[in-house]
Amino acid sequence: MTSIVLWIIALGALGLIVAFYYAKQTADIPIAAGVDSPEQEERLRSIHGAIAEGAMAFLNQQYKYLAIFMIAFAVIISFLIDDPHTPDVNEGIYTAVSFILGCLISIISGYVGMKIATISNVRVTAAAKSGISKAFDVALKGGAVMGFGLVGLAVLGLIIIYLILKAFLPELDTHILMEVMAGFGLGGSAIALFARVGGGIFTKAADVGADLVGKVEQGIPEDDPRNPAVIADNVGDNVGDVAGMGADLFGSCAESTCAALVIGAVAFATNLQALLYPILISAVGIPISLLTILLVRVKEEKDVAPALKNMLLVSSALMAIAVFAVTKMMLPEKFEINGVTYSDLGVYWCFLSGLIGGLTIGLYTERYTSHEFKYVREVAKASETGAATNIIFGLALGYYSSVAPILAIAVSVFISFSFAGMYGVAIASLGMLGTLVVALTIDAYGPIADNAGGIAEMTGMGEEVRERTDLLDAAGNTTAAIGKGFAIGSAVLTALALIAAFLTRADLLAPEQKIMESVNLLDPLVLTSLFIGAVLPFLFSAMTMKSVGKAAFDMIEEVRRQFKTIPGLMEGTGKPDYRKCVEISTTAALREMIAPGILIFGTPLFVGFLFGIPAVAGILIGSLLSGGVLAIASANAGGAWDNAKKYIEAGSLGGKGSEMHKAAVVGDTVGDPFKDTSGPSLNILIKLSAILSLVFVPFFAQYGGILTRIIGM
Amino acid sequence: MTSIVLWIIALGALGLIVAFYYAKQTADIPIAAGVDSPEQEERLRSIHGAIAEGAMAFLNQQYKYLAIFMIAFAVIISFLIDDPHTPDVNEGIYTAVSFILGCLISIISGYVGMKIATISNVRVTAAAKSGISKAFDVALKGGAVMGFGLVGLAVLGLIIIYLILKAFLPELDTHILMEVMAGFGLGGSAIALFARVGGGIFTKAADVGADLVGKVEQGIPEDDPRNPAVIADNVGDNVGDVAGMGADLFGSCAESTCAALVIGAVAFATNLQALLYPILISAVGIPISLLTILLVRVKEEKDVAPALKNMLLVSSALMAIAVFAVTKMMLPEKFEINGVTYSDLGVYWCFLSGLIGGLTIGLYTERYTSHEFKYVREVAKASETGAATNIIFGLALGYYSSVAPILAIAVSVFISFSFAGMYGVAIASLGMLGTLVVALTIDAYGPIADNAGGIAEMTGMGEEVRERTDLLDAAGNTTAAIGKGFAIGSAVLTALALIAAFLTRADLLAPEQKIMESVNLLDPLVLTSLFIGAVLPFLFSAMTMKSVGKAAFDMIEEVRRQFKTIPGLMEGTGKPDYRKCVEISTTAALREMIAPGILIFGTPLFVGFLFGIPAVAGILIGSLLSGGVLAIASANAGGAWDNAKKYIEAGSLGGKGSEMHKAAVVGDTVGDPFKDTSGPSLNILIKLSAILSLVFVPFFAQYGGILTRIIGM
Repeated sequence: MTSIVLWIIALGALGLIVAFYYAKQTADIPIAAGVDSPEQEERLRSIHGAIAEGAMAFLNQQYKYLAIFMIAFAVIISFLIDDPHTPDVNEGIYTAVSFILGCLISIISGYVGMKIATISNVRVTAAAKSGISKAFDVALKGGAVMGFGLVGLAVLGLIIIYLILKAFLPELDTHILMEVMAGFGLGGSAIALFARVGGGIFTKAADVGADLVGKVEQGIPEDDPRNPAVIADNVGDNVGDVAGMGADLFGSCAESTCAALVIGAVAFATNLQALLYPILISAVGIPISLLTILLVRVKEEKDVAPALKNMLLVSSALMAIAVFAVTKMMLPEKFEINGVTYSDLGVYWCFLSGLIGGLTIGLYTERYTSHEFKYVREVAKASETGAATNIIFGLALGYYSSVAPILAIAVSVFISFSFAGMYGVAIASLGMLGTLVVALTIDAYGPIADNAGGIAEMTGMGEEVRERTDLLDAAGNTTAAIGKGFAIGSAVLTALALIAAFLTRADLLAPEQKIMESVNLLDPLVLTSLFIGAVLPFLFSAMTMKSVGKAAFDMIEEVRRQFKTIPGLMEGTGKPDYRKCVEISTTAALREMIAPGILIFGTPLFVGFLFGIPAVAGILIGSLLSGGVLAIASANAGGAWDNAKKYIEAGSLGGKGSEMHKAAVVGDTVGDPFKDTSGPSLNILIKLSAILSLVFVPFFAQYGGILTRIIGM
Repeated sequence: MTSIVLWIIALGALGLIVAFYYAKQTADIPIAAGVDSPEQEERLRSIHGAIAEGAMAFLNQQYKYLAIFMIAFAVIISFLIDDPHTPDVNEGIYTAVSFILGCLISIISGYVGMKIATISNVRVTAAAKSGISKAFDVALKGGAVMGFGLVGLAVLGLIIIYLILKAFLPELDTHILMEVMAGFGLGGSAIALFARVGGGIFTKAADVGADLVGKVEQGIPEDDPRNPAVIADNVGDNVGDVAGMGADLFGSCAESTCAALVIGAVAFATNLQALLYPILISAVGIPISLLTILLVRVKEEKDVAPALKNMLLVSSALMAIAVFAVTKMMLPEKFEINGVTYSDLGVYWCFLSGLIGGLTIGLYTERYTSHEFKYVREVAKASETGAATNIIFGLALGYYSSVAPILAIAVSVFISFSFAGMYGVAIASLGMLGTLVVALTIDAYGPIADNAGGIAEMTGMGEEVRERTDLLDAAGNTTAAIGKGFAIGSAVLTALALIAAFLTRADLLAPEQKIMESVNLLDPLVLTSLFIGAVLPFLFSAMTMKSVGKAAFDMIEEVRRQFKTIPGLMEGTGKPDYRKCVEISTTAALREMIAPGILIFGTPLFVGFLFGIPAVAGILIGSLLSGGVLAIASANAGGAWDNAKKYIEAGSLGGKGSEMHKAAVVGDTVGDPFKDTSGPSLNILIKLSAILSLVFVPFFAQYGGILTRIIGM
């Protein structure tokens, strides 16, 4: 084995070790560290137990469904995919193995993230008793378990599947081998779809249900233990924001690496260290992020938000340096892809354009979603004339906010394309994921802090504790918005790289179809399918938004029923049935994730089978274009409504309980499915349909376009 | 002159004669026909006078701005445009003349529409006294003046500019001549932009302002004469829905005809009747529509809505027959464009695919915006859990509703492209405009009936009259939604045809750039500009939505001020200052239409100058894709919210004044800028940027892409 393989294994293992170390450190903190009385400890344990149990119950049920899906789809893959150029090898079986490995690692990632989140949350509450510094430390380390664990698993998974394939198929062409590896990305992304959509529906059904009946109808505070949906709401934070986001970003990482591998295989068939360079980029992020996290210290309240932001900036700077060295060492000075010569330095510029593009998106996201800036304040002010103007201004803000990120993406695409063609785009998307460990850490930190606050409220830990956890949560909210920006930006670039890989492979497999020339805007099939692609994200958003609405209806009815039928519930003498609410969210999430799943999996396969590869390219690019913009607009509008409400709650423009506040609450509720369900699910839509198409290239090349062949186009 | 020219002139003149005849018939009805007392007559005259005066005041002020713009831009055209292949002819000057003629006819159309609308409205009120049949007749004839007048002017304008150019430039190549003619479409569309955006902002600022202070804060009914913004609101109906919609559809008609002329010129340089065939299609619509309108009779209340819908169906059927004959007579059996052979029958299929596609879109629009169907009722039901769920379901409905129309467009594109290439797409867009006269008639009928109801309310004409006008209005609302569907669908096809014409011309002018091959999805410039194009409609929507919000703030303050400072206003003894509110809407509309104007005009010119023709193509297609979907989603969500509110007001789910009704009013207010400002303005965005690019092809071909030339791409 060459040194690059060893390096990747070592760095991946480092990620797992760090994750394990932090997890142990967190779990070793006694739950009862900061309690005042045995009763409080009892409450703490019971609430924490209910959240952990609910989260695991959902995951276990979801995984049952996913296991069936995984096996069924693996069978489909093994039957439909076979490269006609290698009659003695059935690529389908190996692709199916890659796919299952991708699925499993994604499932493990979600499980680990959820586990650590439910271990950390209660310990952050306890730590908050003794001070902000300690509480921040616990929350951050909890998040770091997710960050290091997930990237470690991704890197190790990629190299392991490579080694397995190489061992079983030593003679196979490198570029076919890389395509088989793409099954790994497909597996990761497929699980991410269900995690995102299911988790998003779960969390928002609980949130909307808890708020509308508890806060609005019964007038009890948020996170009040009398509210039957309150546990479901806290479970939802873990299910949606930890497991969902983790699976999403794991998918992005696996997919953009696979895209780079497939495109690079044309040039680096015999140059292993250049071939595996994309995996090394992600691997290098592990020690860099460790260094960054070790540098961060929070002493006072005001340090929290800057600390999180500085982590992103520092790790970006360190990555920029490290990847320069890695690129120089691993890539040849000059190389050729599809007849064009590129340089190692050019590839580095691609990486940098992605890295800087990602930061730009993140910082713009902050401008549009934090109430430190005028945009969110405008939305808050628009509440003066009622909910309608609040909604209009929020939607307008969302639309506006998509301009700068899309320009940043466009510039990254242009620069990376100019420097290294489609390979460059794939590297740029890895650049945008350059701070993945840190981004994941911060993303998981957010819901942990949020949950800690909920637990503090529910167990009556006192004002001081609640204030500290609120502060941690608020800082996490802003950085979570930044993280969402990254996630969408990298999804767009990843999807683009995958489309490029798809076309590159298709061109190799079916040279007689002249694929590269036929993806012309003036081709009727391409043009038509661009339109159909452009409408898909809207359809998908509509489906997930309505699912949240329907699930919320169920939840509202149940919560109302409990308030009506359980004696003494409002007085605190009756006990709410938390489990029933968790069940409702679980059932709804599992039921409602099926239709969007069929849409995403069905469309490219169906279109490709009937109309062939150029039509698939049109679908992919069309949905990438409108989906990217819609995803950013949805996420930012949702974030802005949330923070406009918080701005008013902090005492501006009338404060809590005023008419303005009521109007802002409407905006926040509208924003919930936007920012936590439909918006983030669009990431998956655009990536998943692209990698699915890439994996099914051999199928399309052999059997695709039957309709167009029949009518002789 | 050949017979086709005479035919076109005769049919265009017929349109004007019919319009003039109906106008005279309407104006001859005495205003005071149905009044009970001299006081009522006095009130009627004063309210009617105030509306007519306000509308004309706005138009006059707007036209001052437009005159300056028109002259300035004509100068720019005359300097920047010159075909290098014809050194002895300055195409710029002739294009500028075409442009000015297009502007003038669009301005005249708006003026005529506005005039007849303000003449008819009060007469419909009067006629409603004697029965529904009479009132319907007056409203319909008022609308027909707009329909026949506008299409007549469009057809005559096109043939006149052709004759002028032919007289001055008899030697010029036909395809260059046709491109010079495209200036006519640009002029029409440029005015339409300001009419749509300005009119949309005017009407919604007044509407939102009147509703929020009058209905919500003061608790007085809609159209109450004590409300200072009530006249501005009624003026707005004319300014936005009559003048704006008219200019928009005049633009579509002129533009799709120009697109067909430019593409067809390649094949029909020496075949005049085939060349001018696209103009004849629109001209043939005039007698067909006359026949249709003469067939329509309404005797009872329940006949109104079916009558309007039948008009669309009957005129479609008649057009399908008439155009078959026209096509067979005018086009050669076989002809060749860019090396591909097409047939006259194929062109007819293109026309039919557009016609049927348009009807499909219209009928689907009805399904999603009428409360006869389950979708709107779902939105109404979602109001049970508050404004937030109403908004979520309304947005989801809007997104959903874009799927079927986009599929219909995609199928039309595919069919027409397959049968006659890009020429076919242009003919399909003329097919979608096949029922233009009738569509315009119904569109203008709507606000006339709406105004008539307002006047009845303000003058206290009694329950019966108000009920009849409400019924006319309700029927008009549904068909207006259908009309909006047509407008968007035809805008998308028109834009596509214009983009095709743009590329066709560019290819002829700069063959060395290999334009046709370079608009490939894998070209970095194309890909980058697709992204930028895709974000433009969102930016544009955000701008117009915020403009409405800002203008509504101004209006709200003024209305509040008047209620506070004018003594006896609520008691009916003090007189509100209507004029001040009209002024506020006027100022806001004129101020806020500048920035979107700069965006639309600036983007293609700027991008083309810096990055060249493929980048412009990317921008155009990108914004066409996301803009088309967003336009449909916005228009339908707005229509659904409106009708969900009306459904509740009609007594379902709690009825007027209930909590559900309040929630539905929030949805309706959010929908106002959606359906009447940002949504319809997107039509103009996608068409105008396309025809602008077409007209500036010689500029781009000579001076475009300086940046890409410098960096040597």
